[in-house]
Amino acid sequence: MIKAGIVGATGYAGNELVRLLLGHGGAEIKWLYSRNSAGTPYKEIYKNFFQIIDMDCTDRDLSELVSDVDVVFTATPQGYLSTVLNREMLNKARFIDLSADYRIKDIGVYEKWYHLSHGSPELVKDAVYGLCEINREEIRKTRLLANPGCFTTCAILTAYPLVKEGLIEEKSIVINALSGVSGAGRSAKVQNLFCEVNENAKAYGVTTHRHTPEIEEQLSIAAGKDVMVNFTPHLVPMQRGILSTISADLKAGTTEDAISAAYEKYYGKEQFIRLLPYGECPETRHTEGSNFVDIGFKVDSRTGRAILMGALDNLVKGAAGQAVQNMNIMFSLPESQGLTAIPMVP
Amino acid sequence: MIKAGIVGATGYAGNELVRLLLGHGGAEIKWLYSRNSAGTPYKEIYKNFFQIIDMDCTDRDLSELVSDVDVVFTATPQGYLSTVLNREMLNKARFIDLSADYRIKDIGVYEKWYHLSHGSPELVKDAVYGLCEINREEIRKTRLLANPGCFTTCAILTAYPLVKEGLIEEKSIVINALSGVSGAGRSAKVQNLFCEVNENAKAYGVTTHRHTPEIEEQLSIAAGKDVMVNFTPHLVPMQRGILSTISADLKAGTTEDAISAAYEKYYGKEQFIRLLPYGECPETRHTEGSNFVDIGFKVDSRTGRAILMGALDNLVKGAAGQAVQNMNIMFSLPESQGLTAIPMVP
Amino acid sequence: MIKAGIVGATGYAGNELVRLLLGHGGAEIKWLYSRNSAGTPYKEIYKNFFQIIDMDCTDRDLSELVSDVDVVFTATPQGYLSTVLNREMLNKARFIDLSADYRIKDIGVYEKWYHLSHGSPELVKDAVYGLCEINREEIRKTRLLANPGCFTTCAILTAYPLVKEGLIEEKSIVINALSGVSGAGRSAKVQNLFCEVNENAKAYGVTTHRHTPEIEEQLSIAAGKDVMVNFTPHLVPMQRGILSTISADLKAGTTEDAISAAYEKYYGKEQFIRLLPYGECPETRHTEGSNFVDIGFKVDSRTGRAILMGALDNLVKGAAGQAVQNMNIMFSLPESQGLTAIPMVP
Amino acid sequence: MIKAGIVGATGYAGNELVRLLLGHGGAEIKWLYSRNSAGTPYKEIYKNFFQIIDMDCTDRDLSELVSDVDVVFTATPQGYLSTVLNREMLNKARFIDLSADYRIKDIGVYEKWYHLSHGSPELVKDAVYGLCEINREEIRKTRLLANPGCFTTCAILTAYPLVKEGLIEEKSIVINALSGVSGAGRSAKVQNLFCEVNENAKAYGVTTHRHTPEIEEQLSIAAGKDVMVNFTPHLVPMQRGILSTISADLKAGTTEDAISAAYEKYYGKEQFIRLLPYGECPETRHTEGSNFVDIGFKVDSRTGRAILMGALDNLVKGAAGQAVQNMNIMFSLPESQGLTAIPMVP
Repeated sequence: MIKAGIVGATGYAGNELVRLLLGHGGAEIKWLYSRNSAGTPYKEIYKNFFQIIDMDCTDRDLSELVSDVDVVFTATPQGYLSTVLNREMLNKARFIDLSADYRIKDIGVYEKWYHLSHGSPELVKDAVYGLCEINREEIRKTRLLANPGCFTTCAILTAYPLVKEGLIEEKSIVINALSGVSGAGRSAKVQNLFCEVNENAKAYGVTTHRHTPEIEEQLSIAAGKDVMVNFTPHLVPMQRGILSTISADLKAGTTEDAISAAYEKYYGKEQFIRLLPYGECPETRHTEGSNFVDIGFKVDSRTGRAILMGALDNLVKGAAGQAVQNMNIMFSLPESQGLTAIPMVP
Repeated sequence: MIKAGIVGATGYAGNELVRLLLGHGGAEIKWLYSRNSAGTPYKEIYKNFFQIIDMDCTDRDLSELVSDVDVVFTATPQGYLSTVLNREMLNKARFIDLSADYRIKDIGVYEKWYHLSHGSPELVKDAVYGLCEINREEIRKTRLLANPGCFTTCAILTAYPLVKEGLIEEKSIVINALSGVSGAGRSAKVQNLFCEVNENAKAYGVTTHRHTPEIEEQLSIAAGKDVMVNFTPHLVPMQRGILSTISADLKAGTTEDAISAAYEKYYGKEQFIRLLPYGECPETRHTEGSNFVDIGFKVDSRTGRAILMGALDNLVKGAAGQAVQNMNIMFSLPESQGLTAIPMVP
Repeated sequence: MIKAGIVGATGYAGNELVRLLLGHGGAEIKWLYSRNSAGTPYKEIYKNFFQIIDMDCTDRDLSELVSDVDVVFTATPQGYLSTVLNREMLNKARFIDLSADYRIKDIGVYEKWYHLSHGSPELVKDAVYGLCEINREEIRKTRLLANPGCFTTCAILTAYPLVKEGLIEEKSIVINALSGVSGAGRSAKVQNLFCEVNENAKAYGVTTHRHTPEIEEQLSIAAGKDVMVNFTPHLVPMQRGILSTISADLKAGTTEDAISAAYEKYYGKEQFIRLLPYGECPETRHTEGSNFVDIGFKVDSRTGRAILMGALDNLVKGAAGQAVQNMNIMFSLPESQGLTAIPMVP
Repeated sequence: MIKAGIVGATGYAGNELVRLLLGHGGAEIKWLYSRNSAGTPYKEIYKNFFQIIDMDCTDRDLSELVSDVDVVFTATPQGYLSTVLNREMLNKARFIDLSADYRIKDIGVYEKWYHLSHGSPELVKDAVYGLCEINREEIRKTRLLANPGCFTTCAILTAYPLVKEGLIEEKSIVINALSGVSGAGRSAKVQNLFCEVNENAKAYGVTTHRHTPEIEEQLSIAAGKDVMVNFTPHLVPMQRGILSTISADLKAGTTEDAISAAYEKYYGKEQFIRLLPYGECPETRHTEGSNFVDIGFKVDSRTGRAILMGALDNLVKGAAGQAVQNMNIMFSLPESQGLTAIPMVP
């Protein structure tokens, strides 16, 4: 039984981690850390857990808590973990960080996009970017796992095979993404009130969204050369779900079949990536509550572009589910353990 | 492994049955019956099942199909099963009927409220009303299970202990219920279009809703005398969930403690009924995706009434989940098998 | 041109007042008071007003601001106005208060239900309860108008004719109400986040909601004897709208026709109350954006009860629209001026 | 008083036309044509109109009905009007067609994208494309007005000044658009049920959406050369609203200021186009119920692209509002008559 602790348990990603770990079978939650809710029973914060979990949140010293567990999940604001984590803690437990602190290798890029100074740059090189389907082998060995962002998981997985195989122009990638509101977290902000986001659609973070450099770094690694993208996220009135719609110029000679073959090559055996029949558009609801990413695409011979589409549940494959998948890999469990829930419709 | 068939697999309750049975572990779906969709792969009807189930809908003769299974679930329109079912079929398989055809013992009452003539009145006496927490022993033995309605499950379970213990005036019960839209089914009707039900609340079926006699019959059995209620359902813009708010005059001397004790007496050991702390109001979202019923209440000493509140997921405990719970009881499996999903928030 | 000031302009009711007054034709907004947003252009707070209103919020001394206007609308938290208002201010301008401070004549009742001590009890007797259709003559003459609550407008108007005519048992009234989320205001609270209220239904304030004594006081005046009710509000995932469903025991001999006649007697000539054909259920969306109250009812001869239903837009007839209607009456303008918008569907 | 008739009055665009014309002041509805609802009172189809309009739908011969009016609005399926309209009818009344039948000058393009054969190609050259802000002078004189589509109005207006001024690469335009569900109409289809579109986001019509050639034709006229775009619409769970997010490569030397100047040049004096401060993102809710188009943009110097964003209410500026605006122009009324509603938030 893997002993797990969760820092930042009261956010939506933390809540989803609790739900997934309680149903996992091979892991056991030892503590739930929250400074603001220390002493409060978790079931009072998330009443769906009434009679299911009977544990108070704690704010005991994290460096002590670490000794009680094999793995620590941190679902915390950007900049928190980098100022707290050190090698001693990493020697005691493995860390799966759902924040961005260890995702970007280039500290300068991190500090520029996040407007933060990084608290432990020396640890960044130890971190592995936890996109399971791509970095599985490195994930197995790491003690510091940088769990990818929700938008980035969706965008990177959707574009990766084409970038890797050199089927699209690296400088032509335009990513539009739609996100449900849970991605904005559970803090009390006017902008996330029901009456502010319902019956509304808007773009935000245009040209400045912090998932941009994460997407670019990973796709650049895949391409073996610099990839630069426009990433434009939108907020739409639903709770869960991310949909990425990516357009890119096809390199001369790229056919539908070549694209299908690329997807098949990298994802054909992946149990959490579902490649839809040609031309079919993924819908976020078909992934809701599950760890699936659904991917479809269409070639526009008129304009010489491909339209690539990916859909996932931002709290599962885009956060907690992928974190559990990473835990499974890191601890040599079956990769899908605890992640077999079928998407729930409606 | 229990072999199961589903008639009416393409509706929302049928879809939920498929989802629950696929994750059950002790049951196996042998066929999915649908006249309108015969020959269509189920995963094309509900694309959440893509790469999960690979089975076409069938319209083979039902009397033959019955031979292939141990249990038949019928998630069909009112009046269908009563004209199709006979003893021969019942000898081959057990039936769990999610329609209303066998719920009401008084055929005249059924025919009056449903405006249908009953096709097999001789089978009604064999049927057991499948409210698991109340009729568990009868359920164990029956071959014809009348699975309760969504509104009725919620209303009856919420009121039952008080009626049974004689704590409220039997003629004073007023039930208001709110329902998500999935309760209206998946047929193409203007009234259920997004733009017709979103941003809207309305009552419907006032004084005539067909769940009324079902509630009355069951509460009358509990009371040992005639109970007559006003039941007023409302449609609100959410997908899943039923909330019942019941007001009733307290009999002289009924205290909060007496009510708590009554709930405790009947439900204290029930794993799917969660009794909330006094005064707390259940919320449908805290049951979403689960088989739970959450119950709370408050006494108004000013007016001498109790306000009782129950919440559940209409597709799980209000339909498919309760059907699986009944199957588990009928086939001597652990009652919660396949029904342990934790409610998903948000 | 009536000169108007709005205190509490940044809440949803304040925002709706701005919208209605800008389209009124006979009124002019002189200032928008807000302590938290003083100095901020109103169009930055509510960007729907971009290029429509060019005015900063102010926190100048209210006793001075009063001199610049004929009427002050206060859309402020409970307890604010009662501690600020005095006769001198009232001599300078008329006040239309959207809070509860002057709605309840019995100070003890106010203080008990609101857990506040009233700051100006001597002014309460001067205040007129602004339910236009019922107190039109008193409204004409007052300088201090207590604008009714959203739930109360809906519940009282729906029940009034039957109570007034003695058609229902005064002690049997049970009111269930559904509210959209804008009724909860625009303050940053976790409980009103999109992900907390969407896909959810719950009751709240059970037996303790502060609109209860307001309903009881007004219905008692109508009945000429004490009326006591159970009022149970529910929150449902929509932005605007209130639906009241009221059950009450019919007095012996009360017929459908008698009820229809009572409604016709009091509302037959009212331009903002629409009496639906017998048995038809009002829907909140059919009133959205308008000042209408739609009322329907049904008699249940089985149980001897009537089910009365009323629907309105909580921000219009339930708040700002009724305030403007009251202004029109107080200033001898046509009662419907600025309030002729047709409900917007979908 | 302009006498108006509406064909296709029972759809959402028709309903919005009725609402706008009733509040217009200078127009009068003479008849509402509907084959499916002939004989039905309009207020029974859209109950928001209860006590507001008292007129039955008719299916009298259209060639006769035309004689009773000055203008006919056709909110009908694609292909209907082109097979019905002739010069004789056009001599009797002016036509404002909300379908696509006369929008595209190139019949071959129309027939290819719509999979229809055009019934009256000889009339196409007489038709004027009714994008008011761009074709105002031609609109004034025409008897056959092709009212633009909802997506196209938004996309073209957002991109037009940059294309016209040659600031962006004509072949680099990628348009992503989000639409509320009312754009899909009011017909009873499973895919538009609440439970199918709520809590969901999806692209559709990828590379084949029929608004594509309309956008291309208009932008090509503006550019004076061929423009070809990728247009990818998405369905999101809201009732009204369209948001366009357009990315395009900047031509060498194009600055923020140049773009601002271009917008100012073409729209600076337009009352229905609101140019937001640089970098601000339009939100559909800020236009709801109004005839506004809100436009914002941002330059990404890293990638050399501009991100242009436009928002509008698909039923107003995207359909009925623009139709009324066109009527105003065609009949020499003030262009904003009947269209001054302030956007309603929340």
